[in-house]
Amino acid sequence: MQSISFNMEANDGAARAARFRLRGRTIRTPLFMPVGTQGAVRATPPSLVEQSGAQIVLANTYHLSQRPGERIIAKAGGLHTFMGTDLPILTDSGGFQVFSLKKLSVDEDGVTFAYPVDGRRTRLSPQRSMEIQQALGSDIAMAFDECLPFGVDREYAVKSVDRTTRWERRSKNAHTRSDQSLFGIVQGAFWPDLRKRSALEMAEISFDGYAIGGLAVGEGHDKMCEILDATIPHMPVDAPRYLMGVGRPVDLVESVARGVDMFDCVIPTRHARSGVLYTDMGRIRVTDRRYRRDFYPPDTRCACSTCATFSRAYLHHLFKVGEILATTLATVHNLHWFASFMAEMRKTVMVGELESFRKWTWETFGRSG
Amino acid sequence: MQSISFNMEANDGAARAARFRLRGRTIRTPLFMPVGTQGAVRATPPSLVEQSGAQIVLANTYHLSQRPGERIIAKAGGLHTFMGTDLPILTDSGGFQVFSLKKLSVDEDGVTFAYPVDGRRTRLSPQRSMEIQQALGSDIAMAFDECLPFGVDREYAVKSVDRTTRWERRSKNAHTRSDQSLFGIVQGAFWPDLRKRSALEMAEISFDGYAIGGLAVGEGHDKMCEILDATIPHMPVDAPRYLMGVGRPVDLVESVARGVDMFDCVIPTRHARSGVLYTDMGRIRVTDRRYRRDFYPPDTRCACSTCATFSRAYLHHLFKVGEILATTLATVHNLHWFASFMAEMRKTVMVGELESFRKWTWETFGRSG
Repeated sequence: MQSISFNMEANDGAARAARFRLRGRTIRTPLFMPVGTQGAVRATPPSLVEQSGAQIVLANTYHLSQRPGERIIAKAGGLHTFMGTDLPILTDSGGFQVFSLKKLSVDEDGVTFAYPVDGRRTRLSPQRSMEIQQALGSDIAMAFDECLPFGVDREYAVKSVDRTTRWERRSKNAHTRSDQSLFGIVQGAFWPDLRKRSALEMAEISFDGYAIGGLAVGEGHDKMCEILDATIPHMPVDAPRYLMGVGRPVDLVESVARGVDMFDCVIPTRHARSGVLYTDMGRIRVTDRRYRRDFYPPDTRCACSTCATFSRAYLHHLFKVGEILATTLATVHNLHWFASFMAEMRKTVMVGELESFRKWTWETFGRSG
Repeated sequence: MQSISFNMEANDGAARAARFRLRGRTIRTPLFMPVGTQGAVRATPPSLVEQSGAQIVLANTYHLSQRPGERIIAKAGGLHTFMGTDLPILTDSGGFQVFSLKKLSVDEDGVTFAYPVDGRRTRLSPQRSMEIQQALGSDIAMAFDECLPFGVDREYAVKSVDRTTRWERRSKNAHTRSDQSLFGIVQGAFWPDLRKRSALEMAEISFDGYAIGGLAVGEGHDKMCEILDATIPHMPVDAPRYLMGVGRPVDLVESVARGVDMFDCVIPTRHARSGVLYTDMGRIRVTDRRYRRDFYPPDTRCACSTCATFSRAYLHHLFKVGEILATTLATVHNLHWFASFMAEMRKTVMVGELESFRKWTWETFGRSG
């Protein structure tokens, strides 16, 4: 493992503004990480991802191990060289795929999957996940866990949480790369006692940072907050806390208010592809007819290259004719908006005014945003 | 019309290196224009098109008049503002659509089309084509013509060529924008006498430049060269000559050797989308299995941002997983390669060594390139 020199800069209630070191850079939290599942943030050249203000990008251990295979990426000189980015990279462990993909079996040693593209049987285990992530050479590796579905029964959840603790301990034991940080993942489904147990066990194993997994799986905003309230008080204060797969502006601000530092989600990139743009006035669907003759930029207050150059009318046109440049321009804007949103939130934490930012976020985006 | 101050810099046999003025810029020929049919070079932000070395981009009068409509573009401040580029823009006249789209009728006054998207009846005429192009505000407008298919019978061709001359005269009469150049288009199908007649009639009408239309419609390289030989000697020497819809490297060099200055073609962009990359060693299909572990850039001698950052193995991976970033990266490379290819060709014309470049092009690309 590699120490990340986590430094707290300010607190505002439970919210934190902090910094840590990664790949020779200073990373400032709270932060949002764009998702590049297959080794690319979709439709977006890495130079534009960097210009968006993103500080870390996420890539997917399981998918990259299938295509092109971690050996090819290692031979290319590692994931940064392969993807053409110098941004720090976090790789997930494959644990989310235990939830999202068809699995053939889960046993004490790991999970057997059928690869969705060709049905090929593949196996993930703590050791194998570490082997892949170390070959990829990401800056932050994630310990191997099992992400449970919403509605899982307690009996299975108890068994799974205990096993996840064993898997994560094995992950740590298998992890040898000194230039890579390793984060643990707290599970426990939707039982506060299981969450607490998992949080304490992860702290006891000791990682460079701690993620909260198994949320944003369909439980809704209130349930998510309830579980955060039951989990975060039992997590270490002197390391980054990373809420996986979140999310929407109100989820982000409520989680930061509860002490979360890091997030990843496909929302800005996936929504961009369907023409949904985030702005300081709320979300807009630029494919709506009303934008046909709207010559304002997507967000009049935004400094991104899309807003500096293009109008809503142009984006509307590109989406209407099915031109994929639309996707790139919209993604660049959304990534920039999310990075700016987090930077603004950080500022309000620094000056003790998160409450007003939280209020603004609710007024602007509400539950559906 | 706007004079473009055409200046010859060098001749090498019939080949020419020249420069002219457009949109306050010095344009150097021979040159290749990327195609942005719908008001965007596909998958490619305009900043990257500019960085490729492209000097002029092409957009399509007929398509833009349908979606989003030229009024919206005029209201946006013209096509440059709408597309977000300061590069000079050439708009074709819609004459190619007389060839490529389903037409309901062609009469003395113009053409009636069924718009492919919704079947809506639309009409193009010399006056209407000028009206659209002047509203778009391109830097070079093209006179309205009829592009004939390969294999058209002589009786129809004679009638059509005479009508095209009348249409182009009407185009010139309808053209009033003093900040827009107007090019005529020579037609005549595959009869040398009709080509000569059309060339002389266009010269008599007098345009800022002269295009050769109706080639690259399936006639093959030798036939194309034969028609160029029958046409170019009858075209003015003191204005740019633009061969429309060409093309492949050997077509480009053979046309330049015969006195052509400008080209446009979808080849670099369309081929990029299917993973075909142009290099100084010939074309490569980066989706081929052999590139899975090939960590060289697409073209080791290329200075484009794709070759500076990414390997064939990475592009191979992106195409294999269906990631559309592949298209952008491949298009950036191909556009850069075509711009560099033309710039190299220009250099050899300047020093009287086009013959060796022509030989190299044939050896590297041959008939199928």
